[in-house]
Amino acid sequence: MNQRLGKASMKPEEPVYILNSASIVGTKEGQGPLGLLFDKVGEDDMFGCETWEDAESTLQKDAVGLALDKAGLRPEDISFIFAGDLLGQSIATSFGISTYQIPLLGVYGACSTCGESLLLGTMSIAGGFAQKVVCVTSSHFASAEKEFRFPLEYGNQRPLSATWTVTGSGAFVLSAGQGASEANGTPGTKGTFARGKNGPRARITGMTVGKIVDFGLKDSMNMGACMAPAAASTLEEHFTDFASQPGDYDKIITGDLGKVGQRVLIDLLQKKGYDISEQHMDCGIEIFDGESQDTHAGGSGCGCSAVTLSAYILKQLEENNWKKVLFMPTGALLSKTSFNEGKSVPGIAHGLVIEAL
Amino acid sequence: MNQRLGKASMKPEEPVYILNSASIVGTKEGQGPLGLLFDKVGEDDMFGCETWEDAESTLQKDAVGLALDKAGLRPEDISFIFAGDLLGQSIATSFGISTYQIPLLGVYGACSTCGESLLLGTMSIAGGFAQKVVCVTSSHFASAEKEFRFPLEYGNQRPLSATWTVTGSGAFVLSAGQGASEANGTPGTKGTFARGKNGPRARITGMTVGKIVDFGLKDSMNMGACMAPAAASTLEEHFTDFASQPGDYDKIITGDLGKVGQRVLIDLLQKKGYDISEQHMDCGIEIFDGESQDTHAGGSGCGCSAVTLSAYILKQLEENNWKKVLFMPTGALLSKTSFNEGKSVPGIAHGLVIEAL
Repeated sequence: MNQRLGKASMKPEEPVYILNSASIVGTKEGQGPLGLLFDKVGEDDMFGCETWEDAESTLQKDAVGLALDKAGLRPEDISFIFAGDLLGQSIATSFGISTYQIPLLGVYGACSTCGESLLLGTMSIAGGFAQKVVCVTSSHFASAEKEFRFPLEYGNQRPLSATWTVTGSGAFVLSAGQGASEANGTPGTKGTFARGKNGPRARITGMTVGKIVDFGLKDSMNMGACMAPAAASTLEEHFTDFASQPGDYDKIITGDLGKVGQRVLIDLLQKKGYDISEQHMDCGIEIFDGESQDTHAGGSGCGCSAVTLSAYILKQLEENNWKKVLFMPTGALLSKTSFNEGKSVPGIAHGLVIEAL
Repeated sequence: MNQRLGKASMKPEEPVYILNSASIVGTKEGQGPLGLLFDKVGEDDMFGCETWEDAESTLQKDAVGLALDKAGLRPEDISFIFAGDLLGQSIATSFGISTYQIPLLGVYGACSTCGESLLLGTMSIAGGFAQKVVCVTSSHFASAEKEFRFPLEYGNQRPLSATWTVTGSGAFVLSAGQGASEANGTPGTKGTFARGKNGPRARITGMTVGKIVDFGLKDSMNMGACMAPAAASTLEEHFTDFASQPGDYDKIITGDLGKVGQRVLIDLLQKKGYDISEQHMDCGIEIFDGESQDTHAGGSGCGCSAVTLSAYILKQLEENNWKKVLFMPTGALLSKTSFNEGKSVPGIAHGLVIEAL
């Protein structure tokens, strides 16, 4: 039976499989440390479009198309698509994925959206409401700067605590165990199947839903510090709900805390009695070389954790370098209106336990 | 067993109960035809706040608090809250409900968000991942005008096809059957329990997830016409998936098509072979008296369908005036950026079968 665990966690009776996935990024991400791992790197950051927003929509569309191709599936094989992005009213999604005509459930959790979409997708499959779903999220440096700070043409200065929004989209095809076997043409018993060329890549075995945590910080140029308390809250809840310890995971992976947020998170958890300094990894720190790429504290955005999961984390799990990770994208719940009205920047973080097959 | 039905629908094995709910509205809604049915009507539309956005956050906060009170529950009794609004990055939610410290899953479906939140909440309970959840959505006339069109101070003219965004928030406590009995202090067998002072008010027995439908219309002052094709698409899918007919429902209720959208919807469905002219009702048409209140085509916004469901529709089901309705909030997936860049206004609509006890 599916289970609610503790105050905020869930454990599906059978794991839900990440059947396949795709990552598409911009030029800067292609030049970064993970550059060679992404499925596609754009020639320029317009992706053949006339606006930044359309470029981001194209990222989502292409990532979903590629993930379906890699899984050997067509849009009509998919029950639901869980999708979102950072733009006001999620327009990257609305104008990106409509062509697939898959029933859509739109999600918003700022940069935690990748985690939220995977969590809801897992819930729909484990709950018996779907066989296969797609989860997709995106961000784009230029559309995000315009949405949250200043248009690029303004040429504003960035403090060292600022992060650089990743241009990229990651799409994931989730599947029930049995369905996954069928899709692979590899008959298997429920919940188990042979690992084939077309996936699956890993399995989702647990989830923790975050709550809004607001320490009153107001600096939209230091979002790592704004989000770290939320990451700490979700992590502490996760350890309690699953009766687990940091050492139970090969990696504890946040989305986009960057270097400043990472220090805050490790400190906050130390005060709670958990030392995650050995296991902690942050997608935002991995995706850019801060020194040579002038990205300051690290990468950020919905796309950051999504493309890193698809290109790097799942690869490590496939190669059995890691057996079990806690993947926890982090989100900063601000808008330019809330910022201009002097509000704080609350954070949220959702966690998923992802295991090797 | 929970079931996926057809291409886009779901049927929970056991119904999920709407344990209780609350509606809070602004002054104009309080003066409308449903005015006396709402739980609370504000003295003015600032609700004691200094900005329109804070006023909308307060609406969500108060609606959730009141729904919990009416259900005799505390925030710690709730597994998850599914919430969203129309503002960029859903800030009405982020700054409204954080005080309850309930794990949050943020949703975005424009004015269909009320339907989407109830649908995902139902999924989480029917899937065995939660006993009780809260679903809340809001809109505010002034924050929405500022977000999508012009600040009120600009005094722009409104064509007759325009709708008037409802100032209001509706919150719903959903519960599994057994949990509902316990909460009421009325022991009952699984899935059944006595109807008590503290609810439940009705039960959710089916769901249909909409897809993005884009007829290429671009007029943000005629959103009814933009959304009607999406409503028609979801309705047709619903009738097919459930093998049902319009006559199987006492009412087929859209969210905020208004008078223009209603005509388009009825026409579109007639061409598909379904006559819904007798059953159709639109929350946007019910909530205002267009003649005396100068609201043109009708009410709109996430709050429109949410407060009408809580105050009016559930009341009709409780009083057995209606036995079974299809509640289908409709959303227009635009932003001011997409509008200014000359994009169309795609629509989406999600449907829920809600039945009397």
